[in-house]
Parts: sequence; C-alpha cells; structure tokens
Amino acid sequence: MGVQEKSVVIIGAGISGLKAAAQLYGGGVKECVLLEARNRIGGRLNTVSGYKGRKYDMGASWHHDTIVNKLFLEEAELAKTSGQKRFVFDDDYPILIDDFRGRIDYNEDLYLEILDNELATFVDFEYRQKLGTPDCSFRDIILKYLFEKREFLTDDQIKYLPEVSRYLELWHGISWDKISAKDSFFGHQGRNALVLHYDKIVERIGRSFPQDWIKLDTEVKAIRREGNSVVVSTKGGGQYKADYVIVTVPQSILKLSLDNDVDVEGKIEFDPPLNSRIKTAFNTISYGSLGKVVFEFEKCLWSTKSTKIVTLAHAKDEIVSQVRNAANWQQLVGSSFAQRSVSPDSVWNFPLLFVNLAKSTGVPSFVMLMQEPLTQFVESLKGDKNRIFKFFNPVLDRLMDVLGAGQVVNEMHSDRVDSTNPVLKNIIVTNWSNDPFSLGAYSACHPGDEPLDMVTALTAGQDSRIRFAGEHTIMDGAGCAYGAYEAGIREANYVLENTNP
Amino acid sequence: MGVQEKSVVIIGAGISGLKAAAQLYGGGVKECVLLEARNRIGGRLNTVSGYKGRKYDMGASWHHDTIVNKLFLEEAELAKTSGQKRFVFDDDYPILIDDFRGRIDYNEDLYLEILDNELATFVDFEYRQKLGTPDCSFRDIILKYLFEKREFLTDDQIKYLPEVSRYLELWHGISWDKISAKDSFFGHQGRNALVLHYDKIVERIGRSFPQDWIKLDTEVKAIRREGNSVVVSTKGGGQYKADYVIVTVPQSILKLSLDNDVDVEGKIEFDPPLNSRIKTAFNTISYGSLGKVVFEFEKCLWSTKSTKIVTLAHAKDEIVSQVRNAANWQQLVGSSFAQRSVSPDSVWNFPLLFVNLAKSTGVPSFVMLMQEPLTQFVESLKGDKNRIFKFFNPVLDRLMDVLGAGQVVNEMHSDRVDSTNPVLKNIIVTNWSNDPFSLGAYSACHPGDEPLDMVTALTAGQDSRIRFAGEHTIMDGAGCAYGAYEAGIREANYVLENTNP
Repeated sequence: MGVQEKSVVIIGAGISGLKAAAQLYGGGVKECVLLEARNRIGGRLNTVSGYKGRKYDMGASWHHDTIVNKLFLEEAELAKTSGQKRFVFDDDYPILIDDFRGRIDYNEDLYLEILDNELATFVDFEYRQKLGTPDCSFRDIILKYLFEKREFLTDDQIKYLPEVSRYLELWHGISWDKISAKDSFFGHQGRNALVLHYDKIVERIGRSFPQDWIKLDTEVKAIRREGNSVVVSTKGGGQYKADYVIVTVPQSILKLSLDNDVDVEGKIEFDPPLNSRIKTAFNTISYGSLGKVVFEFEKCLWSTKSTKIVTLAHAKDEIVSQVRNAANWQQLVGSSFAQRSVSPDSVWNFPLLFVNLAKSTGVPSFVMLMQEPLTQFVESLKGDKNRIFKFFNPVLDRLMDVLGAGQVVNEMHSDRVDSTNPVLKNIIVTNWSNDPFSLGAYSACHPGDEPLDMVTALTAGQDSRIRFAGEHTIMDGAGCAYGAYEAGIREANYVLENTNP
Repeated sequence: MGVQEKSVVIIGAGISGLKAAAQLYGGGVKECVLLEARNRIGGRLNTVSGYKGRKYDMGASWHHDTIVNKLFLEEAELAKTSGQKRFVFDDDYPILIDDFRGRIDYNEDLYLEILDNELATFVDFEYRQKLGTPDCSFRDIILKYLFEKREFLTDDQIKYLPEVSRYLELWHGISWDKISAKDSFFGHQGRNALVLHYDKIVERIGRSFPQDWIKLDTEVKAIRREGNSVVVSTKGGGQYKADYVIVTVPQSILKLSLDNDVDVEGKIEFDPPLNSRIKTAFNTISYGSLGKVVFEFEKCLWSTKSTKIVTLAHAKDEIVSQVRNAANWQQLVGSSFAQRSVSPDSVWNFPLLFVNLAKSTGVPSFVMLMQEPLTQFVESLKGDKNRIFKFFNPVLDRLMDVLGAGQVVNEMHSDRVDSTNPVLKNIIVTNWSNDPFSLGAYSACHPGDEPLDMVTALTAGQDSRIRFAGEHTIMDGAGCAYGAYEAGIREANYVLENTNP
C-alpha cells in the first residue's frame, strides 16, 4: 500500500467531518478522504434501535438555539418542502420531583423557578458586571447567593433551591462541584427541538459527497508535516499525503496526543507535536460525560402532561442552619452541606432529567439524562440491565407515582407485557465514557477554565495546513451538533480560500 | 422679598431632589433650598389612603432590580435592623385570562410563556446580534416573529401569543403600537419587591436634611444664568441666586421649556434656552402614562393563588389566516389585525395587570395597572367612580369568575358590606396625565427613539452650573424610583466635587 495523494484528509466522520467533506466537494475539491476509526459514520451522533424498533439518539438528540442554529434552519426548510416531520419542539414546563414532598414545580410557597432565575441574574452580575470576581464552582456560587440573600429567602427556599438549580448538571454533563460558576447559566437562542432522528441528518450530509471518500475502521495514528504537505498514517499502515488535514476528533482524544510516553487506542502522534498554544489551552478546558439511560415500556400508563421531568437529589435540612448561621460565604463553602457526596453511592445524590417521549413522540419510553461521575459508574456496569434497573428503581417508582402510575415491573427477561403497572421491557445505556474514540461526551468548563483559550488555539490551527473542527473548536454552539457542523464549514472554507486564490 | 443667596437650588422634591439634598447636606453644604410646586414632597411617589385607611402607592410601588438597586439594599438593611417589614417580594407565576377561554397560563397546548421567552430572544437577536435592523413598534416585531416562525407555531399560538406578550405594555405604560421594539424586552436584575409603602422612604430621606430647606407650593418659572451664578425665579415672585441648580422636574415638564410662545403651568423658562443637545434629544425620547385603578373590596372572596393576574385583550381569529397567508412581513404590518384599534372604545382592547394585594399583603383590593391611551381616557373621567366601575365591570367579573368568586356588587354608595359576592366599596384612580407637574408617568421609548441621547444630554447638564436629575436622566434604573435616587446622588456629588476642590 503506497502513499495516496489527496488535497484534503479529514479525520473523523462525525457531523463536523461530514459537513467539511460536503462543503469541500461543493467547493470543487476532487481528492479528499474521510478517515473514521469506528465502523460507522456520525461520531457522537448515534441513533440506535430498541424494543419493537423504537429509535433513540444516544448522542446529541436536540436542535438547540433554533433561532440561530443553521443546521436546524436547513432541516426546517427540508421538513417544509418534504412534508416530513423531522423534529418536534419539546420545551415544556418542567415537573420537579422531590422524593419526600412530591412535585415542587410552580409552587406558590416556594417559587423555585423564580429564584433560579434570580440566581442566574446574580451569577451574571458577579461575572459580567462586577470586575475580577474569581471563578468558583456552581455549587459554591449557589452558596454565595444563599448567603447574601438569606434575609429574603424562606427555610424551604434555602433547602430546595440548590437541588433545583442543579438541573444545569444535565446540560453540562458534570456535577455542580465541577461546573464553572462563570459558565454555568447560558442563554438559549430560541426553543429546543427534539430531532427525529439524527440518523437522517447524518445520512443526508454523509451522502452529499462521493461515498468512496469515506474510509471506515481506519484509525489514524500519526500526522506528520513534510515540506508543504501533511502525511497521515493509519493503524492499518495506510499513508495519505495531503495539502491540508482537518482533525475533527473529540477534544478528549486530541488530549491523548500530549502524552509522549503512552500509546493508547485513538491517540494520534503529531510531528511536530501540538503547538504550545494548544498544549497550554488544555489547562483551561475540560470534558464532561453526559450519559443516557433509556427505559422502554410496553405502553404508556403515566401522565403525558410534561415532556421534561427532573427528579431532584435529596435535599438536606442541614443547609438551612448552615446558611442562617454562617459568618461568611467561605465558611459555608467549607460546611458539611457543601462537602456532601456527589458519588454514586446513592441514586438520590443526583438530579436526573427524564424526557417523557410518550408526550412528544408517542413512544412509551423515558430517556434519562445523567452526569459525571454518575455516568461513569452506570456505564461501568457494562450494560447489566438488571443492575441498572435496580439502581434507578427507587427514582423510577417515585417518578411513576408522581405521574399517576404504579410501580415499575421488570419484565425485561420475560414475555409478559400485560399489567396495570408500567411494564419495563428493555434498557439501553450509553457507553461514551468507555468508548476509546470519545472518552466522554463533550467539552465542559471546570472552575477557572477559559473556554475561549482552546477555541482560539484550535481555530488558529496547528499550523497553516493542519486544522481543527468539532464542537470543541467554536464558541457559538460549543458542545452542540450545530457548533460542530458550523466548525466543519469554517475549516472547509479555510481550505477552499487557500487553495483557490 | 429680596434675592436669597444659596449654594444650591434643587427644583422638585421627588426622590431625586430629596436624595440630592440629603447627599449635599451630608457633604457639608449649608445653604440649599428645595423648591416644590406641589403641596407635598415625593413627586411621583405618592402613597394615599383608601377604604378603612388602607394604603396604596399611586406612583411607583415596587423596588425593581433588587440585586443592584441601592435604594432597596438600603431599605433591606433598615428592615433587618429595625425588624420592620418594609417590602414584600411579590413576583409570581402570572395568571393569564382570556375572556373566552379562561386561564391560558402554563397551558400545555399553548406554551405561551415559552413562546414569549423565544420572542424576547428573537427581538434581542434582531437588535443586538444582527446589525442595522431598523426599529419598529413592538406590535410589528411580534408580527415579524409570527411571520418568520409560523411553520413552528400552531393556530392558537399565533392567535394568543400577541395578546400575552402585550403584558409589556404594563411595564412601559404605553400600548404596543407605541413601544419601541428595540427597547421592548429588558432584563430584570433580580426579583421585584412591593414597597410598604413609599411614604416611609419619602419621609426617611425627606427628613435627612434641614426641614427649612423645603419650600412647598413653590413653582419655579425661570432659570437664568447671571455671571457665575444662576438665578431661579418662582411664581410667587421669589428669587434665589445660587452657585448650582439641580433640575429634577419630569421630562414631560422640561419639554414645555422648548416652546417659547406658550405659558403653561409648570413651564420653566431657561435663559439662555435649553442647549441644542438637550433640545435635539427630545426628538428621540418619549413619555408614557402608566395609570392605576384601585378596586377596594370589603373582604377577599377570591383565590389568592397568584399576586399577578393579566386579563388579556380579546384575541382575534383573523390574525391566524393573515399570518399564514402573508407574502411577507410588510404585508402583515398593513393587515387589519395590525391596524386594529388600541383606543378605549372597549375595555377588551387592552391587557390589564391586576395586582392581587390579598395575597401579598392581605389587603382585599386589586391594584390595576393600565397604559396609554387607556390611562388618559380613565383619568379624564375625573374620578367618576360609577363610570369607572361600569367601564371595567366586564373585566372585573371575568377576573372574579376565574378566581372562583361571583360577580362584583357595587356598594360604593351604600353601607352594605355583606354579600356572598365581592362587595366593591371604593375606587381610587390616578391622575398623573392631568397633573400639570407630571403630565404622565415616566419616560418611555417610541419606535426609533434612542434613550441614550437624552441621558447623555442631561448628564452633561445645561452648562456647568445647571444640572439635571430624575428617572429620565439615567440608564440603569430609567423610569424607576431607584434610578431617580441614584441620579440625585450623582448630581449632588457633581456639585460637591466642584465646590470642594
């Protein structure tokens, strides 16, 4: 197998790489190859089939920011011309469930949504209107709010607000002690639309350029500059010589390149090594592990009032006296409440988001979103469905109770389908944290991180010929499919501008 | 009566003038006079007594933006040290009432709050993220949203969203066809707190400097520069010669000075005339007439679930086909829906906000907020309580119906107090639009206005000795009591800095 000469090599056939290929093809590029380590295209877009052929997106599953999201607007145009339903807006009034009190959303004694909103303003004020406030964890900034506003909060508001505001963990994919306060709340540019399903988008974009460009099961091991060219070597011994390389592997995979001594799956050796700006930027950006568990039921026996249900972590009474008695914020940060466990020794240590598909799409399943470190724990169970069910059973039963249904019966390993109780037929769980080509979900900000550093470093490129795209290389749409898509366009345009002067 | 010599003359004893006086006194100024045209201090802060001595604020009645509002933070400190209740947070989940459908808030078929939120994002995107979008009315930008997003909206959403979003009229004090789209949505810096009552604040600040500084019933007629001094002449023939003058009269009153030919009550003649920057700025700022009607009942027979209830204008079916069939936005702007009446020929032409005091303070009264041009109509009825009741009766009955009470019985002119229905005992109505010293409520933005122009012009002053303060002279807190308060501090500090070098 000799060296193949190409204009452009794209590494990774996620939406960023696919869109880059499509854009290059549209721009007249004839010689391009798309190297994909997995045996499928799509990357962290992955639609799977479950019980009775029901489909679920185990990676990204929404169009976010639909006022500005160009991928969405493209899909909306297609939906209109084809008459096909390609998404469904599923924003809702979230139901909030406390294990002991039951529903506490839109509660006129607690006003937790109004306080969460004020908390967002408080955080915005700390970081965008004051100057020089040091970053801290989302947990600690909540404690600062509680401390400073305690005169204006009831005991129950102090007790429950932290647990409610933790819903943000299900956006960032990490627990509140790891979320950067500065980065915690963010604006939504329009409603969110559930995609039906991302496989259609992957296929549409994946077919918009010559199919022989795509090489599956082709893991890249090295990227080496050679004069005005870049040589890409694959695990199978293939070599590609190209004018440009667009690297779209996840940030977690790129990070492996920093370690010279270890050779792990997925790692790409850069020669010369990643430039110092990129290396340094890894100090100010992190990566999270949003995970999902799909609970598939025989039929829907529960309320379809809301698509979004959050089961809250157990609220702690102790926080009230700790907030009331604290001499200052720092004391509160060191309190037993703040230092409580966020490890998966109990399912009630975490807020969980249950997406009630029965309402939005008619499918009698819940897609549950979870966060690091819970995701790693659940994904470490290696798909042991009975253990996973057992772990989440208390939360599921509480959820069903609030939604007016009986206890869940586990019939995953029987043919039984009839019951007056919800009959669980199957569980599907993500495995992103163990997947050697993703090692988690998407970029995230820990306290002190400066997300702009990495975006600036990667958009500048390794050099003029080795470029980067993906959700971690862009600010607007960071962590989102449409951000990755836009970054793919951006880098393809860079190549086109530099090759067609 | 000779010319009295003073260091500073303050014109207007509203909160801006009072706070300026307090600040000057604290800064060591000994010779100051506060000239007030009315026979009371407080200006557009005015607490009145009603049935059985119940108190209402007919001007400003909330602390807004309580995270940043320094007047609030001062009051909160006082409340804490005195143990006195000086305010109550009364933000709530608003109840939205359509005359035909009843409650349409938090409705899982309509999702109007979620759409209103998306509309806010849409408007923000139009004016802060795109460049060069010309301003238009709030009504027209809603039509633009409906037109552009019609594929994603149900018929009922198209029909009801405009009426719901019009709640903003009750913030701006003007109807949606007059509200600047660019200025329509604005951020709230924290929750709102109902003040108990503003008279306490007026009295507290009004007593924090020598009482003989205050001259009531003293209308200023002219302000004339004379060398390094300013001579202020009053209607009664008084003359004050001062180093500095701080003019805190409302923007509406200041505007009278532009017309050389007319002599009306309240008008101040400037010699030399108002500078050209200020004159020009009047082209890009407007003034609104928020009004209030208090409905006082014998006792509370209705639900106290929410403090905030909005009765919506009658929604129009025609908008659905007009939005669906429009070839473009402009066509929609010219449609019969857009051109419908906003005149007070029907009470159902306007959204109205009913503040349910029975919930927040236990007082069985509703404070109803209304907007221009309805305010002018109602205030023109000269306090004819039976006519006012008759006009609002359909809305009141619908409100009571939704809140689980029977039809209102008018017992304003009898001694009867017992009934299974809500017994109306009194009506109190504002009169700001007829008051020669306010001529309305507070500054507002019409389409095309640039509020910064006037603020910049007035903070620069007429010259180095004639200064301006008030709600219309500041961006943060514009239109609010705390903005006026901060502007008073600002101008007092200006004087102190220039007199104590």
